[in-house]
Amino acid sequence: MELFNPAAIERESMRIIEENLPDLATLPAGERSIIKRVVHTTGDLSCARLIRIHPRAVESGLRALKAGKPILTDVNMVRSGLIKNRLASLGVEVICLINHPEVIKNAQMRGTTRAMVAMELGVPKIEGGIIAIGNAPTALFTLCRLVSAGQVRPALVVGTPVGFVGAAESKEELISLGIPYITMIGTRGGSTIAAAIINALLLMA
Amino acid sequence: MELFNPAAIERESMRIIEENLPDLATLPAGERSIIKRVVHTTGDLSCARLIRIHPRAVESGLRALKAGKPILTDVNMVRSGLIKNRLASLGVEVICLINHPEVIKNAQMRGTTRAMVAMELGVPKIEGGIIAIGNAPTALFTLCRLVSAGQVRPALVVGTPVGFVGAAESKEELISLGIPYITMIGTRGGSTIAAAIINALLLMA
Repeated sequence: MELFNPAAIERESMRIIEENLPDLATLPAGERSIIKRVVHTTGDLSCARLIRIHPRAVESGLRALKAGKPILTDVNMVRSGLIKNRLASLGVEVICLINHPEVIKNAQMRGTTRAMVAMELGVPKIEGGIIAIGNAPTALFTLCRLVSAGQVRPALVVGTPVGFVGAAESKEELISLGIPYITMIGTRGGSTIAAAIINALLLMA
Repeated sequence: MELFNPAAIERESMRIIEENLPDLATLPAGERSIIKRVVHTTGDLSCARLIRIHPRAVESGLRALKAGKPILTDVNMVRSGLIKNRLASLGVEVICLINHPEVIKNAQMRGTTRAMVAMELGVPKIEGGIIAIGNAPTALFTLCRLVSAGQVRPALVVGTPVGFVGAAESKEELISLGIPYITMIGTRGGSTIAAAIINALLLMA
């Protein structure tokens, strides 16, 4: 194996993951690809058992991407981690409002998180698209509230916020909504994981 | 606790981490802050025991930041995760060359990773600064080679590349160099972890 050949490195990494997680072979191809990419991105085999995928998530996410629907992310790190040439060839725009002046002003005024305000402002812009939340539990709680109120119906929610305050609960709420989701249960998560899930879909679309 | 107040969320998160990792109290304040921020960022208490910090790392990193020395990152995700207003108030520039046209061309020509070429091109620009590698083992291997050859002497290397192919070995090589480093041993790591370590330093500087 050539250690500095990028394609060879990725092939070898995926081979090691398959060898160590033989149960993945029993999953549908789309779900298998997503779980493998998350494990590849974290370097942690134990991540695999924390991932939950709604039965229609892969199909619904791929349909949105192929139709060129936009992606809304909670933080710029998620956007920054997406595969640029796949986004461009599908014509998919990625929106992140966390640094939008209106969001900063509004969050300060209300004493709340920018992630929450950015979600409220962003969801009307991505009807039928994908929402990827990799950092803030408050963003996912806000999204769940908007979905429950019938104010948005995303094709897919990738929800992997992280932390000891609210993250696990926000992901349980996402699962309970009944809309297509991909998540990692518990306190773990993060922007790299949300980006890895979207990238797995981008590579399949 | 108010779940949507950002300062309250962070305080509560740090309190939970301290409660669950009482041994942290025995560490020097700088090292404790770094480990707490990594655990906060990953939502994973087990990360704490994987972090290794060279005895002069915190002091040397803080001195570089206070002197406004630049930071070189291997990927844009690390740059994207840094606290912008702290960088601005310290006058610290962040450089990432992974999408530089010369890097893309050169990597294709040589059949090697862009991360490796970006490191070769970047290190002469940050003498006395900090290098943060959160993704690519090939970037850290390249950096170790340049340090061994006496071609660069960074104030601090934050090396948390990830994966099953080379990551663990690249971090062992970093530790063996004898220069100030902060790393997470084994296969785990990632851009969020590299950014969290730099952010801990930015908040102390």
